[in-house]
Amino acid sequence: MAYDPRTARYLCFADARIAFADNRDTPRAWLERCLAQIARREPEIRAFVELDLEAARRAADESTERWRRGQALSSLDGMPVGIKDCFDVRRLPTRVNSALFADRIGEVDAAHVDALRRGGAVLVGKTTTTELTMALPAPTCNPWDLTRTPGGSSSGSAAAVAACMLPIATGSQVRGSVIRPASICGVIGLKPTFGALNRHGGVDPNPSLNHLGLLGGTLTDIWETAHHIGQVAGPDPGCRPLTGPASLPQPRAPARLARQFTCGWAKTEEPSQAAFERLLMELRSHGIEIVEPDADRELDAYEAATTATPEFFFDILAWELRWPLRPMSERRPDAVSAGVRGYIERAGQLTVGEYGSALARRDRLRAQHRALAGRVDAFITLAHIGPGQKGHPAVGTPWYNDASSAIGAPTLNLPLLSVEGVPLGVQLMGFEGADADLVSVARWLLEVCGSPTVGPG
Amino acid sequence: MAYDPRTARYLCFADARIAFADNRDTPRAWLERCLAQIARREPEIRAFVELDLEAARRAADESTERWRRGQALSSLDGMPVGIKDCFDVRRLPTRVNSALFADRIGEVDAAHVDALRRGGAVLVGKTTTTELTMALPAPTCNPWDLTRTPGGSSSGSAAAVAACMLPIATGSQVRGSVIRPASICGVIGLKPTFGALNRHGGVDPNPSLNHLGLLGGTLTDIWETAHHIGQVAGPDPGCRPLTGPASLPQPRAPARLARQFTCGWAKTEEPSQAAFERLLMELRSHGIEIVEPDADRELDAYEAATTATPEFFFDILAWELRWPLRPMSERRPDAVSAGVRGYIERAGQLTVGEYGSALARRDRLRAQHRALAGRVDAFITLAHIGPGQKGHPAVGTPWYNDASSAIGAPTLNLPLLSVEGVPLGVQLMGFEGADADLVSVARWLLEVCGSPTVGPG
Repeated sequence: MAYDPRTARYLCFADARIAFADNRDTPRAWLERCLAQIARREPEIRAFVELDLEAARRAADESTERWRRGQALSSLDGMPVGIKDCFDVRRLPTRVNSALFADRIGEVDAAHVDALRRGGAVLVGKTTTTELTMALPAPTCNPWDLTRTPGGSSSGSAAAVAACMLPIATGSQVRGSVIRPASICGVIGLKPTFGALNRHGGVDPNPSLNHLGLLGGTLTDIWETAHHIGQVAGPDPGCRPLTGPASLPQPRAPARLARQFTCGWAKTEEPSQAAFERLLMELRSHGIEIVEPDADRELDAYEAATTATPEFFFDILAWELRWPLRPMSERRPDAVSAGVRGYIERAGQLTVGEYGSALARRDRLRAQHRALAGRVDAFITLAHIGPGQKGHPAVGTPWYNDASSAIGAPTLNLPLLSVEGVPLGVQLMGFEGADADLVSVARWLLEVCGSPTVGPG
Repeated sequence: MAYDPRTARYLCFADARIAFADNRDTPRAWLERCLAQIARREPEIRAFVELDLEAARRAADESTERWRRGQALSSLDGMPVGIKDCFDVRRLPTRVNSALFADRIGEVDAAHVDALRRGGAVLVGKTTTTELTMALPAPTCNPWDLTRTPGGSSSGSAAAVAACMLPIATGSQVRGSVIRPASICGVIGLKPTFGALNRHGGVDPNPSLNHLGLLGGTLTDIWETAHHIGQVAGPDPGCRPLTGPASLPQPRAPARLARQFTCGWAKTEEPSQAAFERLLMELRSHGIEIVEPDADRELDAYEAATTATPEFFFDILAWELRWPLRPMSERRPDAVSAGVRGYIERAGQLTVGEYGSALARRDRLRAQHRALAGRVDAFITLAHIGPGQKGHPAVGTPWYNDASSAIGAPTLNLPLLSVEGVPLGVQLMGFEGADADLVSVARWLLEVCGSPTVGPG
């Protein structure tokens, strides 16, 4: 069945819990429907590396009992959730699709997993990732077309949500690992401001680039989950907390959106370019000003800087995996792929001075981005160069995502386009610390140009 | 024997290696002399939780062979070093003086340990720490007076250096855990700019406050070791690298030193106050202007802000140990002391908003400090409220150290004073990123007011 962003429907936990409160449904019954869908589709999609059904059913029963007594722990009590397999879940393995971590068992929940568990969420299992979140692809297939990649590295989380196995799953993003699979699988992806959600507890090869993110079927579930994690687990230590209301912010029509090309546009095929141009036309018809990069000197310089981001991005990425991946892989050279080995060799050639220079370039890019606050409401571009590639080695490309990752500003994938009968997403980037404002604008876009149910839920 | 900062002598590796290059001595023979001293003094001092003599002798033999062939790996090749037991050393336990980590084995060297090993340093063992680097004291005694505390939390590292067991050992500082034991044991302590040296690999309960630091007998060994770690392990991911020359910077007489009182002075007994006043007199006699806090409005406001630092410091500290110590201690309540339990309870009461407010206050303090750059060369104060307390429960107090830790500026303990026949140190704080400049000033102070051999080595 061809994908249509206006009719696609995903699971929405915010809807479900209304029935829990009314005693028309229970978390256990809702979980069983998720598990039935997993049983139907998981054999061909392979979104999970580990399912913990016994623990999930026990947690759902406890949640059922709490709802019955009117004592839900949070708005997420009873929500089934998948955890990307780079994060620790107590007593389950964290393998990160790498032989280096074949024996690693989570001793304690990752910070966000701890927060979800305290809120009563039901941990269903661990979702697949690419090798060390960066190299060999996961075995996962795209639910909209099994011959295509689901994107990486949060492959399993995107696929599980798109296949209606779960309302939400967690992800992580260094270059484009939340936004890209969300785009390719047609779900919502949120990469909040760098550090706004605590990403600690797991395998984290690129600490100054890595973000905890969320992939979900509805903006309501995404925002409420982000807010809950922000309250209980807080930010990465030393970073600013996520701010905003506990429930989904009201929609807000943007006055001006800055259009970006980055280095992705030249690599994007014509049908995807055309789909994006049609969306921009539609936005203009609603009175939104689309500001092109050549509108003025500052925007033009910013566009040039984002296009050049890959020049320094990879140096940051490579240096940061010197430790611990270099000593680990030296002892077990066969446990890493040629791709990871190449990264580590590059890391060994870099000097700390080159790393410092790359960080300084990132600082300058961030300053250019901050200087545009107030001039435009957000930045809009494609989220990926096109639909998910066919064939399995591909995990997608980062060309539209490098800059938003390097800048650390909040970024969403909005499932607004269909190309070749499969999803293609739109990347909307805001300003650091203004996550709730970006979500307001995104809600308006989804309600006006997309599926209202994917919007507010 | 009473402590006299002008005659105290410690081990200096930079001197030793001259004899290695000349074939008059070898790393193995030098190590054996350290081990003989350890055998003599360790039974009463208890600076180590783990000694790995077999591996150390093997590493020293390999280093001996490299020096013989003229192929030393670095200027640290053959240097015996102790690692604080909050950091991982491959195949050794990392227990952090806590039952929570009784079974933890280092899978891979901490980043700085990896850097030291690659440079040919000889890892002798793990040095003691207080519980989780923050609570119950280590069993260690002060080498200058066994009835006194060595200070904490880098207790074993300070004691091992002061007892001439090792030329250098690593430490970590959240509040005062490098500067304080260095002061109390009469050795040099360096807490570099926050993040300038990679502290990853181990148990790290307070990530936005914690610094990797060094405790050593001479400024030469301290600086060369810091530089080597900075080159090979780099900074904490995302932080600015340590800059400066590979060998000890030349001495530089400061023109103006800002004197600070903080909240420590009022808690300092008269003999320690008098010793510090005499030092300031001596500095004035060398033409250095000692700028008192009431010299102008900005300095006065800064002094008031540093004095008030404990008001917000503890909120940052407590929030950051919510994860993972809260879930860990909930499962094993008997594995933490009443002190740690109190911290965790406080963490559970804090809101993320309160944490955000505390971070904002820290930012304002940092901005006040940065604004003084160029006005004074450095900030001088006592490093501790007095000599190490008698009796074992005491680990010393953080009152002079909170502000320099919160600000993240480079800070040294200089062993310049003797009170009651035991050491009392002077805290010298510089400006973020200007670590080498601070070391230049410190070298001048040591050469003029202290022991020249403790200075340049």
